[in-house]
Amino acid sequence: MTTTEKLSSGTGTDLTWRTINAIRFLSVDAVQAANSGHPGAPLGGAPMAWVLWDRFLKHNPQNPLWADRDRFVLSNGHASMLLYSLLHLTGYDLSLDEIRNFRQLGSKTPGHPERGLTPGVELTTGPLGQGFANGVGLAMAEKILSNEFNRPDHEIVNHRTFAIVSDGDLEEGVASEAASLAGTLGLGKIVYLYDDNEISIEGDTDIAFREDVAARFRAYGWHVAGPVDGNDLDGIAAAVQEGIDETAKPSLVVVQTTIGYGSPNKAGKASAHGEALGEDEVGLTREALGWEHGPFEVPDDVRENAGGAVERGAVVESKWQARFEAYADAHPELAVRFKQDMAGELPDGWDADLKALAGTFTDPVATRAVSGKALHAIAPNLPRLIGGSADLAPSNNTMISGRGDFQPESPEGRNLHFGIREHAMGSIVNGISAHGGLLPYGATFLIFSDYMRGAVRVGALSELPAVWVWTHDSVGLGEDGPTHQPIGQIMSLRMLPNLALIRPADADETIAAWKIAVENRHGPTALALTRQALPSLSSLGATAGAAGNVARGAYVAKDCDGPPDVILIGTGSEVQLALQASSELAKDNVKARVVSMPSWALFDAQSDEYRESVLPLSVRARVAVEAGLATGWERYVGLDGAVVGMEGFGASGKGGDVMKHFGFTVENVVAKAKAVLGR
Amino acid sequence: MTTTEKLSSGTGTDLTWRTINAIRFLSVDAVQAANSGHPGAPLGGAPMAWVLWDRFLKHNPQNPLWADRDRFVLSNGHASMLLYSLLHLTGYDLSLDEIRNFRQLGSKTPGHPERGLTPGVELTTGPLGQGFANGVGLAMAEKILSNEFNRPDHEIVNHRTFAIVSDGDLEEGVASEAASLAGTLGLGKIVYLYDDNEISIEGDTDIAFREDVAARFRAYGWHVAGPVDGNDLDGIAAAVQEGIDETAKPSLVVVQTTIGYGSPNKAGKASAHGEALGEDEVGLTREALGWEHGPFEVPDDVRENAGGAVERGAVVESKWQARFEAYADAHPELAVRFKQDMAGELPDGWDADLKALAGTFTDPVATRAVSGKALHAIAPNLPRLIGGSADLAPSNNTMISGRGDFQPESPEGRNLHFGIREHAMGSIVNGISAHGGLLPYGATFLIFSDYMRGAVRVGALSELPAVWVWTHDSVGLGEDGPTHQPIGQIMSLRMLPNLALIRPADADETIAAWKIAVENRHGPTALALTRQALPSLSSLGATAGAAGNVARGAYVAKDCDGPPDVILIGTGSEVQLALQASSELAKDNVKARVVSMPSWALFDAQSDEYRESVLPLSVRARVAVEAGLATGWERYVGLDGAVVGMEGFGASGKGGDVMKHFGFTVENVVAKAKAVLGR
Repeated sequence: MTTTEKLSSGTGTDLTWRTINAIRFLSVDAVQAANSGHPGAPLGGAPMAWVLWDRFLKHNPQNPLWADRDRFVLSNGHASMLLYSLLHLTGYDLSLDEIRNFRQLGSKTPGHPERGLTPGVELTTGPLGQGFANGVGLAMAEKILSNEFNRPDHEIVNHRTFAIVSDGDLEEGVASEAASLAGTLGLGKIVYLYDDNEISIEGDTDIAFREDVAARFRAYGWHVAGPVDGNDLDGIAAAVQEGIDETAKPSLVVVQTTIGYGSPNKAGKASAHGEALGEDEVGLTREALGWEHGPFEVPDDVRENAGGAVERGAVVESKWQARFEAYADAHPELAVRFKQDMAGELPDGWDADLKALAGTFTDPVATRAVSGKALHAIAPNLPRLIGGSADLAPSNNTMISGRGDFQPESPEGRNLHFGIREHAMGSIVNGISAHGGLLPYGATFLIFSDYMRGAVRVGALSELPAVWVWTHDSVGLGEDGPTHQPIGQIMSLRMLPNLALIRPADADETIAAWKIAVENRHGPTALALTRQALPSLSSLGATAGAAGNVARGAYVAKDCDGPPDVILIGTGSEVQLALQASSELAKDNVKARVVSMPSWALFDAQSDEYRESVLPLSVRARVAVEAGLATGWERYVGLDGAVVGMEGFGASGKGGDVMKHFGFTVENVVAKAKAVLGR
Repeated sequence: MTTTEKLSSGTGTDLTWRTINAIRFLSVDAVQAANSGHPGAPLGGAPMAWVLWDRFLKHNPQNPLWADRDRFVLSNGHASMLLYSLLHLTGYDLSLDEIRNFRQLGSKTPGHPERGLTPGVELTTGPLGQGFANGVGLAMAEKILSNEFNRPDHEIVNHRTFAIVSDGDLEEGVASEAASLAGTLGLGKIVYLYDDNEISIEGDTDIAFREDVAARFRAYGWHVAGPVDGNDLDGIAAAVQEGIDETAKPSLVVVQTTIGYGSPNKAGKASAHGEALGEDEVGLTREALGWEHGPFEVPDDVRENAGGAVERGAVVESKWQARFEAYADAHPELAVRFKQDMAGELPDGWDADLKALAGTFTDPVATRAVSGKALHAIAPNLPRLIGGSADLAPSNNTMISGRGDFQPESPEGRNLHFGIREHAMGSIVNGISAHGGLLPYGATFLIFSDYMRGAVRVGALSELPAVWVWTHDSVGLGEDGPTHQPIGQIMSLRMLPNLALIRPADADETIAAWKIAVENRHGPTALALTRQALPSLSSLGATAGAAGNVARGAYVAKDCDGPPDVILIGTGSEVQLALQASSELAKDNVKARVVSMPSWALFDAQSDEYRESVLPLSVRARVAVEAGLATGWERYVGLDGAVVGMEGFGASGKGGDVMKHFGFTVENVVAKAKAVLGR
């Protein structure tokens, strides 16, 4: 279909088309004003977006967080102005001034949509594929919660997940992973509109993407509707309805669009994608589409038409509120829990059994095993805790017995199986968290945090609570060798803002870490856990890793009399080495303080006074010991200290042999301590 | 098909079956001796592996690096013993003692195959999906080199890429990405055997993976052969031949196997996957498969049968050598270049035009733009430099004009188009590098290094030369906002051993960085480049960033008279701030030395003396300035210095506004310097 042919249907003068053109030109004008942004996708995608929002999307612009709203995801977040235009016109709290300030510092209209910043933006998108996979998480959450809370004659959770997804989304592996899982799980309330414009930044998509997308999605177990012309409003509506009517499978609606539609010189070209059209071309586009209004001008009738969403939204939510009141009468306890869960509040006593677990581990035990026990202690008291592993549950200790598997045949199951898909797991967990009502966790080996880093970052940026359970956290894992041994992962994950990484040293620290993770409502928490057994710190004469200690990120686990000659700082499996080294040093009259530092992030958030009390600036003889990269520990040991750490990759061998090979021994810690003391 | 039914065909007594059983039991015995490893996949996959190696694989065990060998990839690297058994039996330099020492420290038989350690291991595998995608790179390299070097009547490059891939590989997004690209490119010399055993660690693959794999691959443009029974040797051979005969498409041969085949109590179960069978079960498996030989015992006739590969390999290589000699007579220059390229040697004068570029940039210029010029200066003199971007070439400046696009219709093209598939790009580039003969580069925004980290790590571990061109390297990129602004990426990439990360400060440093990248034969080099224009250091009164300076990782760009009061350390776009701050400080009689530090990795590799000469330990007043995370810079500024850096995520706005907002100003550097001096 050529651009000219499509233009003929785009020049209609009825109110619907004028509303679509208003969306188009708010977008184009904002990009032009910023001289930065992406005009092509809003021009091509406005018709399908409007059809979806106007005819299908259940939402209340005056209450963007209404629990039972449909979720809309703009996976190609670079088309942000399409979403901002829709939000503005349909009555969300996003003023025209914000539209005018697109991409300017301090505006609510950043270059890519940001959850939490802009009312009505469900998810932070832009890194391609994330939104697609997040949506799978949204739909899983809906299915889980509808199963959990709905009762005969009382349906309080019943909404859909819509998205617009682009070629780029479908090329990304994270979306492929998520699509396969969505098909397996039969997530029938997913309806994604595929903006099939055949153009990516380097040119025609044929240069790298000749696959049969529809056939691929059918192979995943999706229903595929279309293709429909991106300007055929009724055709789009029929295809979306087809997707809605297919309730056993997720649906992909193929919509053939023209990037930069209406722009005489850029339509259908990569040049329409990622930069302002230019004043002249904006004018020509206005002419071509018959848009006689000036920049940022929205005719009253268009504003009224689009603004009808406010009243309809109020009505639809009020009906739901009435249903919810009836539900609360019939099932008061469930209603209370629903509200509590959606608000992310913790029920009283959620951690009673977890607390009881503290101090009960006397024999050496792997922190991954303790984590499994902690999960079992939390889950019965916190139904909204839900998660699974990327096919490593038996190693990650993340399967909760008695809770069943979440499968098409058993939607009441609560153990998720992500398959060998770490990246999608990350994005799906983020989506579940973004939905509200559930606290999700996801697990794999620490080394494979690399595979899911794109998702972990967006989750941290979006401040989405989630728990990452990353086991096998050092060369101590042994025989699997360097391909599986994390070296720089712990340190590099410390470089991710808003991720609370905790590497507990023993059972009690692990239990404390889980408490912190569940209570952290401002972003993800990551637990780095050992494969190998560790003695309890108290068995080595140290203070137990009480919850309060771990929450401060670092604490004096064992002190000397008077000012220390040297401070030994350890994390995780190496705190035991520091403790034993301190005893050895004492024999040589060296006074050593041992600091257990399970979390840099938490320690750095403490007061100057507390941090000084743990690590007095006057004591410069410091040795850090951690079975990971040494680089970075200078933050705490400075230029005068030393690190017992690694410089390169690991090696395959028995865990104990490998640890010794790389110098993780009491003797080496003692030697380094003496060296920094010049003894 | 049940296990019992399959067992019937596995108990044959002919030499072929006994060879297959020898592979099986070497594998099982080695896992048992280590009490660690994966017996299930070798038991199930030995027949197909043997059919492939015996009937199809063109290789010379006595010269594992013969240029025109077929490449074999074991993508499910956890089945390492399958590969080690094959290598041992077919005559590679891998002794029975090495097999006995499986997974022990110092052996050549680590838990997962490691390139460079074990003769005959093409690639480091284990992290799932990598091998699959690496193989696409191998096949691309073959296609590129055959097009480059073959001449009428002289075919010196003509080999296939075989792999065994598992469910886990096919679930990983990186493999999906690579498969789609392989289909687009019509890489007809790929034949992958899919070990379809329907089991993953958490149980039946149905729990997470119900898709129609064959249909998916057909949608990608692959030919799919099978399914065939994993014990039907002739059926497997016929299906492989079918894949070979299909030369216009890559082929996937679906082989239905039973994990842990032959083990009476574990066959077909997840428990056969990742742990030793146990002494008793090993005995029962011996009985079931009729294997009467003891642990690590290989009957002479089996050894002779498998060892026939040595003689056949010598013959096939010698024929090739004869062909190569004829080629060298007819095309002496090409033959010299072929040998040089395969050896990874650089031709004289490869950098003549690059050198000429130094000093030519007087106006401010973005380092990404300089990088593009550098590429154009190198490429004509170094044909083996090849690469592309994950659909961001116009932004990454990585398209080399006049070199055409590598497409099915134009295999002579030299610009690669990876599509929006960063992870596959990473793995494919690694595969191209592993093939030999080419120096590949791959490009995207620095933020999306997160998406490809799994591949970058394996490339670094494998010491594979490659160049990562990562542009838009800080919040200075501006309007795209926090989703696209790298904060901790630079610091976290410094935590990857064997990755030479360079963040040049101006045009000359960028030119120098490219020289280092091309010459680095021991692993990947990454270039972090700006979107925004930067002034030349010399225009700010500093020493030019000569090649020798950058190669040392850090150097004194501008010094003061006598011992400095304070040292200002900058990287990339922030060196200019340090230089300007030093001038401001001079006005207040503060003597500041400015150090440009483009690469921690290169600086840390220098002598103690050199490092001390740049950063004298006696000068503790130090300020680092980098538009990235501050954490980590204590390595160079210690406990008494300061960092002008970031603590959290970025913001959308004009680049200059954003930089100022986060404190990247001359004033702030001056203020921090004075603060550390207590002035």
